[in-house]
Amino acid sequence: VKHTRRSNDTDGIVALFEPQSIAVVGSMREGRFGGYLTVKHLLDFGFRGKIYPVNPNYDTVLGMKVYPTLKDIAGGIDLAVMMTAAPAVPEIIEDCAAKNVKAAIIVSDGFTERDEEGARLQREVDTIARRAGLRLLGPNTIGVVNSANGLITTPYRVPYEEVFSGGIAICSQTGLLGPQTLPLHDMRYGLSKICDFGNKCDIDELDLLEYLGSDPQTRVIAMHLEEVRDGRSFLRKLKEVVRAKPVLILKPGRTRESRKAVTSHTGSLAGEDHVYDGAFRQAGAIRVDSFKELVDIPKIFAWQPLPPGNRLAIITISGGAGVLGIDTAVQQGLALARLSPSTLDKLGSISPVLTSNPIDLGPGLPAFMKKGDMASHLHGIIETLVDDENVDCISVACPWMLRGALAEVFGPLRDRSAKPIAFWVPSPSLTRAQDIVIDLETLGFPAYPDCDSSVRALAIAYKYSVARSRARQLEEEAR
Amino acid sequence: VKHTRRSNDTDGIVALFEPQSIAVVGSMREGRFGGYLTVKHLLDFGFRGKIYPVNPNYDTVLGMKVYPTLKDIAGGIDLAVMMTAAPAVPEIIEDCAAKNVKAAIIVSDGFTERDEEGARLQREVDTIARRAGLRLLGPNTIGVVNSANGLITTPYRVPYEEVFSGGIAICSQTGLLGPQTLPLHDMRYGLSKICDFGNKCDIDELDLLEYLGSDPQTRVIAMHLEEVRDGRSFLRKLKEVVRAKPVLILKPGRTRESRKAVTSHTGSLAGEDHVYDGAFRQAGAIRVDSFKELVDIPKIFAWQPLPPGNRLAIITISGGAGVLGIDTAVQQGLALARLSPSTLDKLGSISPVLTSNPIDLGPGLPAFMKKGDMASHLHGIIETLVDDENVDCISVACPWMLRGALAEVFGPLRDRSAKPIAFWVPSPSLTRAQDIVIDLETLGFPAYPDCDSSVRALAIAYKYSVARSRARQLEEEAR
Repeated sequence: VKHTRRSNDTDGIVALFEPQSIAVVGSMREGRFGGYLTVKHLLDFGFRGKIYPVNPNYDTVLGMKVYPTLKDIAGGIDLAVMMTAAPAVPEIIEDCAAKNVKAAIIVSDGFTERDEEGARLQREVDTIARRAGLRLLGPNTIGVVNSANGLITTPYRVPYEEVFSGGIAICSQTGLLGPQTLPLHDMRYGLSKICDFGNKCDIDELDLLEYLGSDPQTRVIAMHLEEVRDGRSFLRKLKEVVRAKPVLILKPGRTRESRKAVTSHTGSLAGEDHVYDGAFRQAGAIRVDSFKELVDIPKIFAWQPLPPGNRLAIITISGGAGVLGIDTAVQQGLALARLSPSTLDKLGSISPVLTSNPIDLGPGLPAFMKKGDMASHLHGIIETLVDDENVDCISVACPWMLRGALAEVFGPLRDRSAKPIAFWVPSPSLTRAQDIVIDLETLGFPAYPDCDSSVRALAIAYKYSVARSRARQLEEEAR
Repeated sequence: VKHTRRSNDTDGIVALFEPQSIAVVGSMREGRFGGYLTVKHLLDFGFRGKIYPVNPNYDTVLGMKVYPTLKDIAGGIDLAVMMTAAPAVPEIIEDCAAKNVKAAIIVSDGFTERDEEGARLQREVDTIARRAGLRLLGPNTIGVVNSANGLITTPYRVPYEEVFSGGIAICSQTGLLGPQTLPLHDMRYGLSKICDFGNKCDIDELDLLEYLGSDPQTRVIAMHLEEVRDGRSFLRKLKEVVRAKPVLILKPGRTRESRKAVTSHTGSLAGEDHVYDGAFRQAGAIRVDSFKELVDIPKIFAWQPLPPGNRLAIITISGGAGVLGIDTAVQQGLALARLSPSTLDKLGSISPVLTSNPIDLGPGLPAFMKKGDMASHLHGIIETLVDDENVDCISVACPWMLRGALAEVFGPLRDRSAKPIAFWVPSPSLTRAQDIVIDLETLGFPAYPDCDSSVRALAIAYKYSVARSRARQLEEEAR
């Protein structure tokens, strides 16, 4: 597989995410997989553009005309999506070329990742597309999502009809980070774009970094990369993007065994881990360790300001959780804030048990509950910390008894605080915990299942703020 | 605070978990905190023993007679629980002593963890109890749970009326691991005992290790310890218990800052981390890193056999998840299994895309779904791996489309496999994911949210199997 990148054709990338018209080539039989589902999703999600189903064996699908081939479509086509058997793909790509289609998503598998014959097919397809100036995503991909225009190309069933619009973009080399496997709707996940690179025969991380770096809807970029094709260009672009928005990278390959597996399932070579590690850090990107973090951490960047410094205040309902939070904080580069004398005075006037950071509500809970004023006390505590110049960021345990009063207690803090606040939600009921998380996140506060995770999110936000300052300073000096 | 341990009075510990009668001293007013709730929980959870509410200001509560003081109760009392203000506690403990109560739980706070006056009170209480041979849990504790007899002492609201009986015991130095904050019921968590040490003026980790080590209901012990009181005795006992059942330990204090916080909120001194780390490892205990792991990892020990070796097979629906799973596996001491030729033959006959480990169902999913026989194929794949002598443990992605067929597909494997199987459940719906987790765990298979976590659980099971072998061998040699 050649890894030379084709000319910087941004028209094709724009067509990939913002097509005015889309052709879907595949089976139109109702089922659990196929073109039928892609067409249905486009309708359900309210895609704002023309949809052309393509299949020689159907006349209509979902009340729409089905065209035998791409060439039978009279109008222009920005984007074509295909999920036929691999051997049928070259001819469809020829048709795309003939129709001046700008970008094509090859969902089909059976290419480089399969065997030598598949690799040959992929080269053939790539040659046709390159000659025609057609940009390709895939093969072996779920495709893309754009929450701004209802674009969704997955051919698997998606049990919801809307992705919440927001500032988070996710790119990956796996179909695991798409709407067919992520409970985006249940999480009220505020998304700008999703892109699954698949085999990356053409469109790659550099294209996406360029596009998302200047996409006004995208506030934070989360990338899962099994290998980086053009390291030098990618790092140069990364440095530039990091000055404007955070880039989180999940990069497996920490062991020889996983690098070998990458080679076998993507057909590409994976480099040494420490090289990537150093290069990412130098460029100011944040490396995370799991899919979970790649999906969860961006919330803090999408909704909260960056911490002005590294001094953390913890509000907990358990001394034990606070202590573990400190370990995480210090290991991740935060420091425990020394509360100012006036803060300590105010805390003491709220309750004599509130004497230090971490601020442990636990011992005071019975008294707070008796007085029935936990909401105003907690609001007062957070407000005091927001005003304390010794505090830069705040982790807050949200007592589950506050369900129902969340908007009242925390809503006003949203615009008042120039410091990031991250919540965690202990609860004896999973449903209630999830309800509270949704309420808090609707208010713009990221909420995590435990103290550790909230502290880690704040620490990563701080790391980025340092990286951004450095990147901006270097730019300044280079002028 | 003196840390000398009192005589080995196991009667008191037995009374703590298996009382025939329990006195509850505290407010009997209906509310969000207090003795009323403890009495209500005991009734709701079906406590099998006599309940004596105690309070001078009430005549009845929940249809039961309320006694003015402990001394007004005619019958014997095994266990007393109190949640009065701290200054009232010494007199109640005097009454316990007079009544020959065997164990007392001091829920009240305001002792060593508060201030010097609190420390004085705690010493006073401790002296009275010690003289009377009364064992004390706390102060500043939520108390205990025993699923076998419906014993639950928490004075906070619990939104369920049952804890599933099972093999997992949890001890902690925080109230965060009790039924009032853990969604035990929603998780169908199979529990034997819970114990919150609180300030540990008497009953401590060594008592619990002794009791749980020989408790037939307990198959695995999970301990959160901020400090270990009698290190030498604890380690000796640990070595002994580890020969029979796994002990997981969550120990904060990895940083100077957190050790300082431990000192301030428990009033006890926390030792250097590396000393604990080495000692735990040498004794064969497994150290985990978060409350989440302390709660989630024990499931694999409660339900699955230990891995006979470290060779892991991964069944995934995404090549990318498999690769991250490999990193976790190798970093945690597992190796990627080399599947035997006959396994590879069988996999190939199920689908030509199944060619290596990790076994990626992803590319085959559309074909499987078309044939409508994903269930039997997945069953066949797992069965083949169970029979492969090159495989010791298996991580399986459970495709969410199998909901409804789980018992049929995986049920028969339960008794057939001498190798542990851990699942992970990707799903575009949180509710459906949770339903699948519950179904799988009801069948006896631990299920985790992602591939990494399932692999980590298997790796920890393997670590324990090695530690157990070594511990047994050392015992053998010592004879």
